[in-house]
Amino acid sequence: MATEKEVSGGLGLEWRVTVPEGSSVKMEPEPSWISRTWNRLVELGSKLRSKVSTFGKKVWKIGADSPRKVIHGAKVGAALTLVSLFYYLRPLYNGFGSSAMWAVMTVVVVFEYTVGGCLYKGINRAIATLSAGGLAVGIDWVASKSGESWEPVILSASVFLLASAATFSRFLPTVKARFDYGVTIFILTFSLVAVSGYRVEELINLAVQRIATIAIGIAIALSICILVYPVWSGQELHLLVSRNMEKLADSLEGCVEDYFMKSEITDAKESSATRSEGYKCVLNSKASEDSQANLARWEPAHGRFGFRHPWKQYLKVAAALRNCAYCVEALHGCINSEAKAPECMKKHLRDACMKLSSDSSKVLKELSSSIKLMKRSKSIDALVGEMKNAVHELQNAFASLPNHLTQTTASSPIESTEGKKNSNISIADGVALMEAMPLMTIASLLIEISARIQGVVDAVGTLATLARFEGIRNEKSSSKVQAEEQEDKALQEV
Amino acid sequence: MATEKEVSGGLGLEWRVTVPEGSSVKMEPEPSWISRTWNRLVELGSKLRSKVSTFGKKVWKIGADSPRKVIHGAKVGAALTLVSLFYYLRPLYNGFGSSAMWAVMTVVVVFEYTVGGCLYKGINRAIATLSAGGLAVGIDWVASKSGESWEPVILSASVFLLASAATFSRFLPTVKARFDYGVTIFILTFSLVAVSGYRVEELINLAVQRIATIAIGIAIALSICILVYPVWSGQELHLLVSRNMEKLADSLEGCVEDYFMKSEITDAKESSATRSEGYKCVLNSKASEDSQANLARWEPAHGRFGFRHPWKQYLKVAAALRNCAYCVEALHGCINSEAKAPECMKKHLRDACMKLSSDSSKVLKELSSSIKLMKRSKSIDALVGEMKNAVHELQNAFASLPNHLTQTTASSPIESTEGKKNSNISIADGVALMEAMPLMTIASLLIEISARIQGVVDAVGTLATLARFEGIRNEKSSSKVQAEEQEDKALQEV
Repeated sequence: MATEKEVSGGLGLEWRVTVPEGSSVKMEPEPSWISRTWNRLVELGSKLRSKVSTFGKKVWKIGADSPRKVIHGAKVGAALTLVSLFYYLRPLYNGFGSSAMWAVMTVVVVFEYTVGGCLYKGINRAIATLSAGGLAVGIDWVASKSGESWEPVILSASVFLLASAATFSRFLPTVKARFDYGVTIFILTFSLVAVSGYRVEELINLAVQRIATIAIGIAIALSICILVYPVWSGQELHLLVSRNMEKLADSLEGCVEDYFMKSEITDAKESSATRSEGYKCVLNSKASEDSQANLARWEPAHGRFGFRHPWKQYLKVAAALRNCAYCVEALHGCINSEAKAPECMKKHLRDACMKLSSDSSKVLKELSSSIKLMKRSKSIDALVGEMKNAVHELQNAFASLPNHLTQTTASSPIESTEGKKNSNISIADGVALMEAMPLMTIASLLIEISARIQGVVDAVGTLATLARFEGIRNEKSSSKVQAEEQEDKALQEV
Repeated sequence: MATEKEVSGGLGLEWRVTVPEGSSVKMEPEPSWISRTWNRLVELGSKLRSKVSTFGKKVWKIGADSPRKVIHGAKVGAALTLVSLFYYLRPLYNGFGSSAMWAVMTVVVVFEYTVGGCLYKGINRAIATLSAGGLAVGIDWVASKSGESWEPVILSASVFLLASAATFSRFLPTVKARFDYGVTIFILTFSLVAVSGYRVEELINLAVQRIATIAIGIAIALSICILVYPVWSGQELHLLVSRNMEKLADSLEGCVEDYFMKSEITDAKESSATRSEGYKCVLNSKASEDSQANLARWEPAHGRFGFRHPWKQYLKVAAALRNCAYCVEALHGCINSEAKAPECMKKHLRDACMKLSSDSSKVLKELSSSIKLMKRSKSIDALVGEMKNAVHELQNAFASLPNHLTQTTASSPIESTEGKKNSNISIADGVALMEAMPLMTIASLLIEISARIQGVVDAVGTLATLARFEGIRNEKSSSKVQAEEQEDKALQEV
């Protein structure tokens, strides 16, 4: 909605500005201050126009990239229009009186983008309203029994104490994560009921009305949120983790490729630069992962996710992945630093490094698709094995690097006498070692990354067990067990 | 408040449980199911007791660690008690009617921990209420002029359109960061006024009353928040960044020291482990930095911070610092990995590595105190120079490593013939290069970290300029200029 408005607004401005611009050409002989003011206005107009059109494009892009956000807007509008019927329909109005307002308020405040957020707020609001309302009515009753002079004292003291304690409780991490909104509503409801009870006689009647309208508000918000194009926090988290894993894999492979193939490929550089910077997403997604996991626990079973789906384990997978991303970041830094290794060394190690990075990236991609499909991977063990082989190959390539160096750095290997060659080695080695430094760092970061990928493999394995991924692991492991038993038997027979 | 309650609750349980425990000894000859149930109850009780006492201790710790949080609780309680006077005092009650409720609601919802948060919500609420109220009254007027059958259609359509557009606008990053709460209140107020206007005739009267009570609520919340032990978002951000910088410095120095001095120091290991993990704070504080910076912009001038203090630059400093922290994390990983360098190599590089890490850490600490005191550092240029020297020293130490290796790895340097030594070198080098790998990685990560620290130096320099840190930079640079001018003159004379 907003996008179209903004865009057409931008067009409108364009017309207004271009038409007078043409006419100003005829008025050249006029006093300079008028033309200056005019120019300034035109400038301002065109700036405004460009700003509005940039803004409009940005808005349009957000809407086009994720239509679900536009749908969310329409859902909120629909829920509010629905709830406002309570005002228009006289019979209902007579039933609920002015507390129908609470239904509107509930819809506005409870309706969140994800089902988890909506349920979190709805359930928090319901529990907090009921408990605070009950407590307030109780304290009101006690206060009313204790005489007119004590009544305001008891009520004020209870408001002060409960509000202070509840506010402080929001600093506890568990309360903050799960009941933050509930505590706000608790304080609000308690204060309102306790305080208004001093004036309004029909307190319980009012409370029942208010609870009924809040329940209606929550029901409308929840049903529209869940039934019309629902966005599930759990699914978002699931996809986020699996997508981040793929991005990191691309990023790892991309930046090593960039480094070793730089001289050969230049055209595709820009696209690969964006590709190899995917690790930044992994570094920056902790906050959204945490909040999605917090909200996901409120969601009922949906799609492929059961009621007690292990959302916390996703956070562990994400933490292991971020652990890798730190190293990929450092790798990126080393690759883009000024110190460059000589081409001959790069050539010597190129294959081994690229093999390791591509094997590591394959493991991550396999894990990503395993999570995405919620199936245990058949090939993960083999891929991890290959990655470990690649580590050994890289280490071997390194061990043979000095031989290679003495051959290439000795200025003329055929002429060299024993003594000359010897002095060449020690000087060349000192320089060569310095020159090899960036390469060694890259190699050992690659090895460290592969070690950390093992951590991701383990975390995903635990996730697969906890979330009962479909799969072949059981058959496979049982066949392994059978094979081992047969081996044992064979050994005993021998 | 809550802490004492919890703790005394814990003690109460302790009594209840320990007394019957003693008496159960006498009842031994009773039937087994009773004693079993009893044991189970005792077990449950002691579990509950330990849980409550752990919880109580946790709560107590939070309160003791930051008394400001307890004070915040009391402040909210006081504000609510104050605002509830509007209900108790009859003259005011008669003036405002039941919309005094809105004052209570405003205080509950607007009162935040930091002044920035409170102002953000207060200003958002005020602007949103006014604009949405005005718009709703206008649309109501138009609707009332267009006949009874069109009225509900126009009102419903306007609620739907505005609510949808406003909800969608929350996905725009700038709106999300600055006006998220305002948009909620806008939707809420607009819906309430537009919808209730259909029934209630005295719309403007009601609006004025409501705005007045909301203003009173905001005024009470703000004045208590600002006047009683205020917590400023800006100051929090300022301290957070400077503290994180110090933590990273400690962490960098600590982990390099741990690595090179491990064999010598073992007692202080545990304390240094927590010290060297300070970098994790830097990695995880992005979300809180962002939110503090967002809130700080709402705050007026306070303490040493002017009205337009460059809060955004703090985020850049923090980003540069986080950039270092990624590398420190990778360094940590390398240091704790299984591959260990031989002691002789470690000894050879120890001094250079420790010099570099301590110099880097000194630069960070100097920057940290420069930020904390808001003074330009006198010695930062010298310290950066020293750090760069240390980088060169480390590179030199590396260049001399191979000579050192041939001396130490050749089994018997005195006996060695030319040929034997030669073969020794090529084998030893292959192995030695592999063994040197972790050390080389550590060294080159240290060099990379020092390069990234340069980025922090630059970011802090910009901050110092933007925030007009007091300082000696101007005198110093003017003396530099003078010296250069004298040099120029001398050169011209020659």
